[in-house]
Amino acid sequence: MPSYQPPLRDMQFLLHEVFEVTQEFQAMPRHAEVDADTINAVLEEAGKFAADVVFPLNISGDEQGCTLDRDTHAVTTPEGFKQAYAQYVEGGWAALSCDPEYGGQGLPFVVNQCLYEMLNSANQAWTMYPGLSHGAYEALHTHGTEAQKQLYLPKLTSGEWTGTMCLTEAHCGTDLGLLRTKAEPLPDGSYKLTGNKIFISAGEHDFTENIVHLVLARLPDAPAGSKGISLFVVPKFLVNADGSLGERNPIFCGGLEHKMGIHGNATAQLNLDGAVGTLVGQPHKGLAAMFVMMNAARLGVGNQSLGLTEVAFQNALAYAKDRLQMRSLSGTKAKDKPADPIIVHPDVRRMLLTAKAYAEGGRALSTFCAVLIDKELHHPDEKVRKDSAELVALLTPVVKAFLTDNGWTATTLSQQVYGGHGYIKEWGMEQFVRDARINMIYEGTNGVQALDLLGRKVLGNQGASLKKFGKLVARLVEEEGVNEKMAEFINPIALLGEQMTKFTTEIGFKGMQNPDEVGAASVDYLRVAGHLVFGYLFARMAQVALRAIAAGNSDPFYLAKLQTARFYFAKLFPETATLMRTARAGSRVLMDSDAALA
Amino acid sequence: MPSYQPPLRDMQFLLHEVFEVTQEFQAMPRHAEVDADTINAVLEEAGKFAADVVFPLNISGDEQGCTLDRDTHAVTTPEGFKQAYAQYVEGGWAALSCDPEYGGQGLPFVVNQCLYEMLNSANQAWTMYPGLSHGAYEALHTHGTEAQKQLYLPKLTSGEWTGTMCLTEAHCGTDLGLLRTKAEPLPDGSYKLTGNKIFISAGEHDFTENIVHLVLARLPDAPAGSKGISLFVVPKFLVNADGSLGERNPIFCGGLEHKMGIHGNATAQLNLDGAVGTLVGQPHKGLAAMFVMMNAARLGVGNQSLGLTEVAFQNALAYAKDRLQMRSLSGTKAKDKPADPIIVHPDVRRMLLTAKAYAEGGRALSTFCAVLIDKELHHPDEKVRKDSAELVALLTPVVKAFLTDNGWTATTLSQQVYGGHGYIKEWGMEQFVRDARINMIYEGTNGVQALDLLGRKVLGNQGASLKKFGKLVARLVEEEGVNEKMAEFINPIALLGEQMTKFTTEIGFKGMQNPDEVGAASVDYLRVAGHLVFGYLFARMAQVALRAIAAGNSDPFYLAKLQTARFYFAKLFPETATLMRTARAGSRVLMDSDAALA
Repeated sequence: MPSYQPPLRDMQFLLHEVFEVTQEFQAMPRHAEVDADTINAVLEEAGKFAADVVFPLNISGDEQGCTLDRDTHAVTTPEGFKQAYAQYVEGGWAALSCDPEYGGQGLPFVVNQCLYEMLNSANQAWTMYPGLSHGAYEALHTHGTEAQKQLYLPKLTSGEWTGTMCLTEAHCGTDLGLLRTKAEPLPDGSYKLTGNKIFISAGEHDFTENIVHLVLARLPDAPAGSKGISLFVVPKFLVNADGSLGERNPIFCGGLEHKMGIHGNATAQLNLDGAVGTLVGQPHKGLAAMFVMMNAARLGVGNQSLGLTEVAFQNALAYAKDRLQMRSLSGTKAKDKPADPIIVHPDVRRMLLTAKAYAEGGRALSTFCAVLIDKELHHPDEKVRKDSAELVALLTPVVKAFLTDNGWTATTLSQQVYGGHGYIKEWGMEQFVRDARINMIYEGTNGVQALDLLGRKVLGNQGASLKKFGKLVARLVEEEGVNEKMAEFINPIALLGEQMTKFTTEIGFKGMQNPDEVGAASVDYLRVAGHLVFGYLFARMAQVALRAIAAGNSDPFYLAKLQTARFYFAKLFPETATLMRTARAGSRVLMDSDAALA
Repeated sequence: MPSYQPPLRDMQFLLHEVFEVTQEFQAMPRHAEVDADTINAVLEEAGKFAADVVFPLNISGDEQGCTLDRDTHAVTTPEGFKQAYAQYVEGGWAALSCDPEYGGQGLPFVVNQCLYEMLNSANQAWTMYPGLSHGAYEALHTHGTEAQKQLYLPKLTSGEWTGTMCLTEAHCGTDLGLLRTKAEPLPDGSYKLTGNKIFISAGEHDFTENIVHLVLARLPDAPAGSKGISLFVVPKFLVNADGSLGERNPIFCGGLEHKMGIHGNATAQLNLDGAVGTLVGQPHKGLAAMFVMMNAARLGVGNQSLGLTEVAFQNALAYAKDRLQMRSLSGTKAKDKPADPIIVHPDVRRMLLTAKAYAEGGRALSTFCAVLIDKELHHPDEKVRKDSAELVALLTPVVKAFLTDNGWTATTLSQQVYGGHGYIKEWGMEQFVRDARINMIYEGTNGVQALDLLGRKVLGNQGASLKKFGKLVARLVEEEGVNEKMAEFINPIALLGEQMTKFTTEIGFKGMQNPDEVGAASVDYLRVAGHLVFGYLFARMAQVALRAIAAGNSDPFYLAKLQTARFYFAKLFPETATLMRTARAGSRVLMDSDAALA
């Protein structure tokens, strides 16, 4: 059976030593009082909840899955899931970073991000139930009417109700412009929705008495395509003005998908059979409102794979120290044992360090983004808010795709460390791999993320956002350019930063001639960008570690940081050499392949 | 539901146009009469059997799995599995390339290789039942006494009985020197075996009335470690001298593993409770005898992933042509449809072509090796036999690890083409991924393969075997060096061939100082070697295609070959640039990581 230790030390290192969040918070009236002790205490409790309550339900939840009663349309979640959620609500975890106006605790988003990393390590399938609520909360908080906010936000904040995102239909996932669900106006200003949604995560369950569905549909006068989509809030039970529950709304679960993983989460087909809802935001502007949820969800998906990477690494490390098999190539290490632990083998270390570097780089990036989101939301200076929002927009597809591709590699390698035992369910490693697989697909496939990054976020403003990130890199390079001890971390990012500017311009020019050049380069481009960002963050972590060591701090944590950073630059970062070459191969080799793909 | 078309055209291309097998066979008395029509007719029938009989049982076999009756120790396989096997036996497929002396059809091994690729595409879990028999057959054929051969080979040849390989125990997989199963001599010259084996594929089932287990165990006077292991044949039912079945031998299935994939195959825990067996080969030399099975099994595992790569690609291609979603970046392509088929997107093509290139490169390598095995077994010239065996030994770890790593990538990308539907069981794509995962692990993990290649097969003879392969590359480079049309295929392998020589020498020198340098470079090295081999084979395929086109042949198959080869050299082969860099990073960055891996 696998185990899990919340990585509190690494979180504290990032929050307090690398990003110095409490200094950042001092500039924000909302968070000025949030100090390090509070954050650490919250994270410690969060870690206990994740490890002690949610983690023990991970394997059993995978085995049992969810079941649908076709007569009552009721879904039963795996044993213990409902009780754990009740504890989650009781502990106030749902409200952690929600708006105090609706009963939230108002803590910074970055604290919630850390909570969610731990919950995802513990049990991704379970965590998706409360996780989806956050998207619904955000969409209503940003675009809802006052009445909608009063009706729904307090219950979403407390966790008494959960929320969903109902986008996909059988014939449209990426291409929401094709969606067919209809919304007809009713005399009282509400709407009657008819249609069929699929792949609705946490779409039906037994956790709460009500579920707040946010549904994309078309008004009768809607223009065709993605400019004719509106967003509606459609509760499972209608809500009376006093907040009490009214009639059951005809939005029924018609089936549950049988999936590769995340079995504990109910992936529902939802049939809307004249379900009543109200409009959120402007008519036909639903996609824009939905993107509020979607961007949060994309960061959340990156965070899911970060969680799986961490827990898979921890278990592989423990196994590699424990499993005795063969002798070290460089001579027996454990003379008193029948064989050496497999961690003596260089390639086992390569697999472990890959997972560790992806966990630590991923955590650094997730934390970096979360702090930017806190600034975007609460910094008094408009320019800071705007710049932060711009960087978050740039980094969102990187978090989603780079962290989930890395998570696939990391969970697969961690499983590999176990040899044959990794393929057996009871060891838990294969579940991490199966669960991690969905993260590369949902909330926009990783291919779609790459197009979003290169086409929209980078070339869409002639590289202006990328230059802003480039300035951060340049500042670090300047700062540490003469520090010999930092050279091994600074030189690679200085070089890649320069190459990347040229590389981007080159693709931009080619793309103006032929837009397929952008599509042909995008996936490779995103990984290069991911390494530029990881390289920058590993260099910043190394900088802090070197300073601590120079100041006489003998905590082996800092040495570990340097070792992981060295491994990262020696063994993972050099992938960029190939990626820039294959990106430059251009679109012809892909598009002139009709015979091969006949 | 997925579909499958046997890739007969590509097999015929490799057999008849690239490797010109019937010319090779003419030199071998055993196969001199085998002509192209016979081979093609056999493969056509084999394809029908795979597609029509075995493939329809793939998803249902995964859903049902195998069940063990703990009272009778009997294992029930999924519905239809047993009947399909009866058809397999009746059709004579088990005997295809077996020795006519024991009732085999005596066809070349390469024909069997093609049969097995198709069976693996159709249903890897099912195919492992007959597949394991081949190892047992080989071990007895090579090392058995005349009595053992007479007793077992006719039934293994006909398929009336199946065979297994019983190596692994709970505490030893890679490190067989640790195994504990005991064999005590009995007065009649047989042995009584006691111990517990795990992970025995096809270890118990309801296909046949008997199962021939080949078991590794220790004699009482055995030296410790891997030099004290002997091989025994232990039938499920004892066999009387006249071939009739005697008593049930106490080798009982004590449990079945719950696995990530290959659910249709019974992965058995086998308890030997004084089971009676006879010695195969010399006492304490069991490991050498076992390697006869093991090397065949390793090639077979590469072939499993080749099969999965092919079937996953075929389905992803069909889906990409069918699924309408978004418009092409370079302008609407299907004006009469609500959206373009997703195959218009460059990155969808990249995913498809990656899978296709790995299928075609893998098939070329598997076929190349199988022809070498036919020469090793049946060529009248001893030098040809020896050289062939040497190349097979060199290439075996490449086939096992490179094809299975590629298969993981290819099935994952093929699944990705389906978007969310790829994660849903009924589409069948996620099963290909789960089934493919075991191939990187069993019969020696891919890390063990890499050590075998670099440490034993390359550096173990100072690069002599590698040079032999290098000569093949050099010959092709010389032959086509002045052909402008071949330059795009020849230049990369000419350059990599040179780099590889230097690179190998460099690692060899470093390894003499510190053996961990070999372990640190081995996995990267194997992938570089894999690309040298694939590059060579793609260049040979391109050569044939260019000649056909120059001769006026307008079959689009040849153009498709060139397109796939171009894609391969532009987008996959350049990985070698990074791999040589990361291999050169050396062992320190891995071994000086005790703090990071504390």
